[in-house]
Amino acid sequence: MSLFITFEGIEGSGKTTQISRLATHLRSQGLEVVQTREPGGCRVADAIRGILLDSDNAGLAPTAELLLYAAARRQHVEEVIQPALAADQVVLCDRFTDATLAYQGYGRGLSLELIENLNTLAGAGLCPDLTLLFELPVEIGLNRALRRIENATGPAEDRFEQESLAFHERVRQGYLTLAERNPHRYRLLAAEAHPDQVFAQAVKIVDKILIKRQGL
Amino acid sequence: MSLFITFEGIEGSGKTTQISRLATHLRSQGLEVVQTREPGGCRVADAIRGILLDSDNAGLAPTAELLLYAAARRQHVEEVIQPALAADQVVLCDRFTDATLAYQGYGRGLSLELIENLNTLAGAGLCPDLTLLFELPVEIGLNRALRRIENATGPAEDRFEQESLAFHERVRQGYLTLAERNPHRYRLLAAEAHPDQVFAQAVKIVDKILIKRQGL
Ligand SMILES: Nc1ncnc2c1ncn2[C@@H]1O[C@H](COP(=O)(O)OP(=O)(O)OP(=O)(O)O)[C@@H](O)[C@H]1O
Ligand SMILES: Nc1ncnc2c1ncn2[C@@H]1O[C@H](COP(=O)(O)OP(=O)(O)OP(=O)(O)O)[C@@H](O)[C@H]1O
Ligand SMILES: [Mg+2]
Ligand SMILES: [Mg+2]
Repeated sequence: MSLFITFEGIEGSGKTTQISRLATHLRSQGLEVVQTREPGGCRVADAIRGILLDSDNAGLAPTAELLLYAAARRQHVEEVIQPALAADQVVLCDRFTDATLAYQGYGRGLSLELIENLNTLAGAGLCPDLTLLFELPVEIGLNRALRRIENATGPAEDRFEQESLAFHERVRQGYLTLAERNPHRYRLLAAEAHPDQVFAQAVKIVDKILIKRQGL
Repeated sequence: MSLFITFEGIEGSGKTTQISRLATHLRSQGLEVVQTREPGGCRVADAIRGILLDSDNAGLAPTAELLLYAAARRQHVEEVIQPALAADQVVLCDRFTDATLAYQGYGRGLSLELIENLNTLAGAGLCPDLTLLFELPVEIGLNRALRRIENATGPAEDRFEQESLAFHERVRQGYLTLAERNPHRYRLLAAEAHPDQVFAQAVKIVDKILIKRQGL
């Protein structure tokens, strides 16, 4: 039984922290799990990620950025996600098509219609079965991301973490709009809570879907 | 007076050889000339070019490749070509949107309609004033390109030079179809001739357009 779950939310909302915990949880139930992320997840897409996150590329044109995300996604979908789903595995993906709508669309103001067309092309028509939205105030998320940098436990501050608070607020509201428009696959997590509590929320949602799918 | 000239044709047809000669010729007439190439022409696009031409990326998905070309082009157009044309300069570009139609469309068989849409997006709607098509049999072009590699005077054999003869033949015929469909801007050069003769053909065409444009 294949299952495609995406992790979405602003910076520092806890996606990367929880994706590993959920992978362990699902594997302990005997499921084959592929844990991956965007942009990246394979050789070509990682090379593209390098261009996207390089702070020296501050002059990157918004439409060029959009096309780079699309290129990385298409390679990742063909090389990693589709084969895993075809082999009945569970795919956990840290950001996917909705991140492009949230960041480039709601955040930067590029045409949502253009992004949707590119998402369809890049995602080869693939749509997540479940999208977990890590919801919390922008200040809290950015503070966490900042502390991560100071502690040097995570990647250096990238092009997105240099954006204004207002930009991140637009991204957060964009995600909430996407959740409203796609209620069948979106589930919100109260991501301000303690990591153990966030994990408990995620497990409850995922286990429910697994039970339904397995017809138990 | 701005003028946008693109150089198209199969590998080894002499584009790079002639673009520099034409730049010198036009500068000697007092024109400001920007000589550039695709994929590449600026920092971001050169990084993308590295991914595209890397033989280790043989598994690059055709649609991902298409999106990478589009990303590189958009950055190049915004950062280099549009500013130069806005400053009334002559832009000579080694390959442009037609190369994507010829290689990815006619060569690889991707949808021409999809490529045209991406070309419009990536090129920001820009269309060359003149396209010089370097026309010659595939065997002659590839032999020249091969000799260039053996002499180590050019770049190492890249992903395209490893393609079959049949692929390059489809590309050549694709270019001829594009020329038929865009007679207002396409001019064919008999590229089998001696470099001096090819140059003479190019100069004749370009000088004629300059005279017309300058209203002389
Ligand atoms: N529930 C939580 N409460 C407090 N801190 C947390 C919580 N979850 C994660 N953190 C910490 O916050 C920081 C950011 O978490 P994480 O990297 O998981 O977020 P993210 O959503 O993946 O961010 P990004 O979008 O930047 O990749 C990390 O240092 C992490 O340890
Ligand atoms: N008219 C010509 N006759 C014979 N050899 C030529 C002629 N023009 C160019 N060459 C040689 O052929 C080789 C290929 O030429 P060039 O690099 O200009 O082609 P190109 O169209 O730019 O190829 P590519 O698409 O691979 O970049 C070079 O070694 C060049 O010196
Ligand atoms: Mg993360
Ligand atoms: Mg060349």
